Amino acid sequence: MKARYDFASDNTAGAAPEAVESWLAANTGFVSGYGTDPVVARAADLIRERLQADAEVRFLASGTAANALALAMLAQPHEAVLAHEHAHVCTDETGAPGFFGAGVGLIPLAGPSGKIEPAVLELALALPDVSYRQAPAALSLTQATEFGQVYAETELRRLIEPVKAAGLRVHLDGARLANAAAAGFDLAAISRLGVDALVMGGTKAGLPLSEALVIFDHSLTRRLDARLKHAGQLVSKARFLAAPWIGMLVSGAWSERSAHANAMASQLAERIQARTPYRLTHPVQANAVFVDMPEADLLRLRERGWFVYRFLDGSVRFMCSWATTAEAVEEIAEVLAV
Amino acid sequence: MKARYDFASDNTAGAAPEAVESWLAANTGFVSGYGTDPVVARAADLIRERLQADAEVRFLASGTAANALALAMLAQPHEAVLAHEHAHVCTDETGAPGFFGAGVGLIPLAGPSGKIEPAVLELALALPDVSYRQAPAALSLTQATEFGQVYAETELRRLIEPVKAAGLRVHLDGARLANAAAAGFDLAAISRLGVDALVMGGTKAGLPLSEALVIFDHSLTRRLDARLKHAGQLVSKARFLAAPWIGMLVSGAWSERSAHANAMASQLAERIQARTPYRLTHPVQANAVFVDMPEADLLRLRERGWFVYRFLDGSVRFMCSWATTAEAVEEIAEVLAV
Amino acid sequence: MKARYDFASDNTAGAAPEAVESWLAANTGFVSGYGTDPVVARAADLIRERLQADAEVRFLASGTAANALALAMLAQPHEAVLAHEHAHVCTDETGAPGFFGAGVGLIPLAGPSGKIEPAVLELALALPDVSYRQAPAALSLTQATEFGQVYAETELRRLIEPVKAAGLRVHLDGARLANAAAAGFDLAAISRLGVDALVMGGTKAGLPLSEALVIFDHSLTRRLDARLKHAGQLVSKARFLAAPWIGMLVSGAWSERSAHANAMASQLAERIQARTPYRLTHPVQANAVFVDMPEADLLRLRERGWFVYRFLDGSVRFMCSWATTAEAVEEIAEVLAV
Amino acid sequence: MKARYDFASDNTAGAAPEAVESWLAANTGFVSGYGTDPVVARAADLIRERLQADAEVRFLASGTAANALALAMLAQPHEAVLAHEHAHVCTDETGAPGFFGAGVGLIPLAGPSGKIEPAVLELALALPDVSYRQAPAALSLTQATEFGQVYAETELRRLIEPVKAAGLRVHLDGARLANAAAAGFDLAAISRLGVDALVMGGTKAGLPLSEALVIFDHSLTRRLDARLKHAGQLVSKARFLAAPWIGMLVSGAWSERSAHANAMASQLAERIQARTPYRLTHPVQANAVFVDMPEADLLRLRERGWFVYRFLDGSVRFMCSWATTAEAVEEIAEVLAV
Repeated sequence: MKARYDFASDNTAGAAPEAVESWLAANTGFVSGYGTDPVVARAADLIRERLQADAEVRFLASGTAANALALAMLAQPHEAVLAHEHAHVCTDETGAPGFFGAGVGLIPLAGPSGKIEPAVLELALALPDVSYRQAPAALSLTQATEFGQVYAETELRRLIEPVKAAGLRVHLDGARLANAAAAGFDLAAISRLGVDALVMGGTKAGLPLSEALVIFDHSLTRRLDARLKHAGQLVSKARFLAAPWIGMLVSGAWSERSAHANAMASQLAERIQARTPYRLTHPVQANAVFVDMPEADLLRLRERGWFVYRFLDGSVRFMCSWATTAEAVEEIAEVLAV
Repeated sequence: MKARYDFASDNTAGAAPEAVESWLAANTGFVSGYGTDPVVARAADLIRERLQADAEVRFLASGTAANALALAMLAQPHEAVLAHEHAHVCTDETGAPGFFGAGVGLIPLAGPSGKIEPAVLELALALPDVSYRQAPAALSLTQATEFGQVYAETELRRLIEPVKAAGLRVHLDGARLANAAAAGFDLAAISRLGVDALVMGGTKAGLPLSEALVIFDHSLTRRLDARLKHAGQLVSKARFLAAPWIGMLVSGAWSERSAHANAMASQLAERIQARTPYRLTHPVQANAVFVDMPEADLLRLRERGWFVYRFLDGSVRFMCSWATTAEAVEEIAEVLAV
Repeated sequence: MKARYDFASDNTAGAAPEAVESWLAANTGFVSGYGTDPVVARAADLIRERLQADAEVRFLASGTAANALALAMLAQPHEAVLAHEHAHVCTDETGAPGFFGAGVGLIPLAGPSGKIEPAVLELALALPDVSYRQAPAALSLTQATEFGQVYAETELRRLIEPVKAAGLRVHLDGARLANAAAAGFDLAAISRLGVDALVMGGTKAGLPLSEALVIFDHSLTRRLDARLKHAGQLVSKARFLAAPWIGMLVSGAWSERSAHANAMASQLAERIQARTPYRLTHPVQANAVFVDMPEADLLRLRERGWFVYRFLDGSVRFMCSWATTAEAVEEIAEVLAV
Repeated sequence: MKARYDFASDNTAGAAPEAVESWLAANTGFVSGYGTDPVVARAADLIRERLQADAEVRFLASGTAANALALAMLAQPHEAVLAHEHAHVCTDETGAPGFFGAGVGLIPLAGPSGKIEPAVLELALALPDVSYRQAPAALSLTQATEFGQVYAETELRRLIEPVKAAGLRVHLDGARLANAAAAGFDLAAISRLGVDALVMGGTKAGLPLSEALVIFDHSLTRRLDARLKHAGQLVSKARFLAAPWIGMLVSGAWSERSAHANAMASQLAERIQARTPYRLTHPVQANAVFVDMPEADLLRLRERGWFVYRFLDGSVRFMCSWATTAEAVEEIAEVLAV
């Protein structure tokens, strides 16, 4: 029996055709190294255009590294970052912010479906500064959230405004920004809202492996390439991290293929609601479906070859990606329906 | 006029056909993430086979990161690493060992053409341990050296033996190990000599971007994947870092294409000696040619579109790669001959 | 009105006469620096004798530094330390373990009155090792706990045994070890139980400022003085950190004066129970009294000049020290009784 | 035979009477912790007054920590600090700047007798910023230098002006600032020259153990106490680090006793020149005497019980301190004269 990772995560898929095409196209001739070549410049231009913002753009192989490096730029080692308690930086990045930030702390905040509750944020901001605790210097947001929710611009503003008013900076983990964009989130809102650093996800959107680190505040970028190199995040043949973005952005595939992923999630959710006894634990707004499922049923699924995982809140998570097929949705719905 | 980076470095070339082919072949279906997939397993097996050693193998996007992470495993923060004063870790990695190692130090050693002089090493080992100085816990070697020299196994033994006897560990920066192998260096010697951690270069050998971190001493690898993740060096779609190794190793291209690079360097060296007034400053054993050249001549070369750089010892460096053509060698020899 | 810090903490007191005496006695003549002098050697001997253990002993000015440095010796940066959620290292040390340990993590565990619940610990130990989470490499215990509880040796054994069986190491924060000793805890149990690193508190026991870092496992101490120096924890005139220990240990004052502190806490607890409506929220076993008190009453206390603080669990904390007088206990009991 | 450390260093002496007196005077009653007490405030005021500058002042137990923490405030991890190749931060602090600064680098500069040569500094400043090298973000100066020289204000200006013009910051290691002040250096020059962070030495000037970290640029001090705590440098009973400054500064002993140390060095230098064959290798401007001495003679000295050390340039160093007596100078001169 073949192991099936179709719904295990959105990084179990390969690279989308548009990404492969421009990766191959970039593989010609000799170019200068370490991100100084025209392929990197073109990809960065396309990202600035897509975000409608003047910003520094770099390409990294790891989203964990991109997030952690961004946070290390926004908070001093003796300070902390506010983030949702279920945010990837808090739960799935092995303490990387503490490594990149020489001990920078994380302050977990609660809220439904991965969205930070404004009242909880305000309480955190109201805490007095004391020497024995790491006070927050930045807020980290995730769009779409770990539970597949898409913040409206007004919701983000309600979180960002008090944070900015208190003199903190803002980071946005956009590992699934393409899914949010496909769900209607206006990317121009990011700079409009005053986000200081964005990690714009490529890998989960269909690139082979690449995340764009986007810094809006130019005062933070002194010797940015040296910072990347020092932290092991500047590769010599950088064109191979940048090139796939060109195909994905010029063709529109970056968001369109994520629209497909979102549609597959909707379809799967419908099937589950129609044919199974399982309750959905979060609204389906992007490419994730969360299901309340007994352990026995999860094991049965595993026995049939399907790998999916119980998530932070106890739900079982089904992720769709650019590569998810309607057939696979049908197949797993059938297995679940038994 | 077109900018020519043919000889600027061996990372200005693209990816070799064999690497592209297996990269493309790996882009099918869904696989588990973070290095747990069969592509990664196969590539690791091929590397173990090529090195004739049982070792842990991981694939990283950056050689700087791979070196720095290895050194952080071999020395404590309050200790140091002995390395040639012109080694890449000392001169071209922006202090990355200090970042990955929380302040781990580097002790530069002298020696001709990038090779550490045994007598100099012995002096360093003889220094007393004192609390106010970072004492060495490891030796870092480079094969081939920054100046294109290939250590003989006996030469390496002469350096490694006293180091091991003193209780230190050994790291080998093999960014250009393929060139050394092509020049006759037996890769099985690495484990035979007791090297603890090797960075086996892929990028400069014709991969798109990938270095293999090879740990021979299994006592060092507790939670190695967590260590990588924590340091921002574990990518989700790891198959794309591993796959190119398969094509390169199965076909033999990893070393054969480096043999070509070496041959191009020899050819270029011959042309320079035959047709120009310039003196070669180091023997040509791998893929680099170093030339004693006045600044005016270097500028003239730049004006003709050719980018090459003055190196650490003042020589001008011409690097050949898997992609260097005989025509390009002829072209630049002509420009140099004028 | 004079500000009164008598019960604010046990570090608001000055230095005890026995500590001052031996501090003054050490201030004669010229001695070698950085901990190599006879005063340091003598103090270390006395500590080894008191602990009935062969161990490396160093003297640091800061307990936070001593704890963090110890944890950095017991866990790798990509690993974590298990500790009570209210332990000082978790709540009051500004993320210092993350700084000293290059991002080492903390895993908070629950349990009553600052004691770790064995079942909670076992759950944490049972979690699978995964690359995206910092797995525990050590357990940090506190004796007496933040809530003034004293673990019995059997209780400690029940926590340490499964931890040791799982291959983890053990740290003991003994900032108030003197109070525990005064309450009957046998110091010889520390090495008997297999604790790897102890921070033996001097400051809160009546020294001017000094904590003893005690490492039982000699395999951890390679170049320990260099490690201290590298981390800014090796002072030149080390005799002044070591000397007060001599007076305190030779005279027995280290534990006897803590017995006085404990007695004062008992007396205060009795007064509160006899004369006020307040409920004690934790048993009084060492030098702390915790009280359930409305905010208005706390403010009234503050207005009368008395500084005490609301603690992690919402209780108001009254700390006694070697310097607490029966008169002060009477005074505050009177204020509370109104 | 008694070991004699009189000339081994200026930290082999104990604490001066004025320091002891105010240390004892501070040991009364209960005060708030962690540097918030009136003793700390008073000592800080006295330092601001002495420096004629509005600055943040904190008291640390270790000069290495104070220097490293200051450098970590002035340079980012991917940047470096320019310093004399023989400066204490480069040669005697076990890589602490790399630890406190998460890999911050040091760039050693040459110059006679520990003074940086302006032309060498200018060369370093002229180097282009590249991603693969840690570019300088700060200059670290030492007054008096490791070789006992006292920079004139004009000399410092010649070094600081180009550095400030290039946008770098300035750190002054004043471990022996008292000796420089005693030799005529105007302390008000420090803020006048635009120094950003000063470590004002107490320990070598006769305090038991205390260095003042003085930050002139208030934009650097956000959450300074949390930064100190995070780095293990905020002690609870801070009054004991601050109090000795009060006695030393109010009485004038801080510089007057250093004037004595300087005078003893002059006297020793005279004796050596008059009665021995040894050449002085550096001018005697502060409290150090450096002598060109064969190994056999050094060993003979050691056999007679006198500990002195061969220094970085090969000279044998004799340090005088506040506690050096004319008798000891006579004694050692006699031994040397034989």
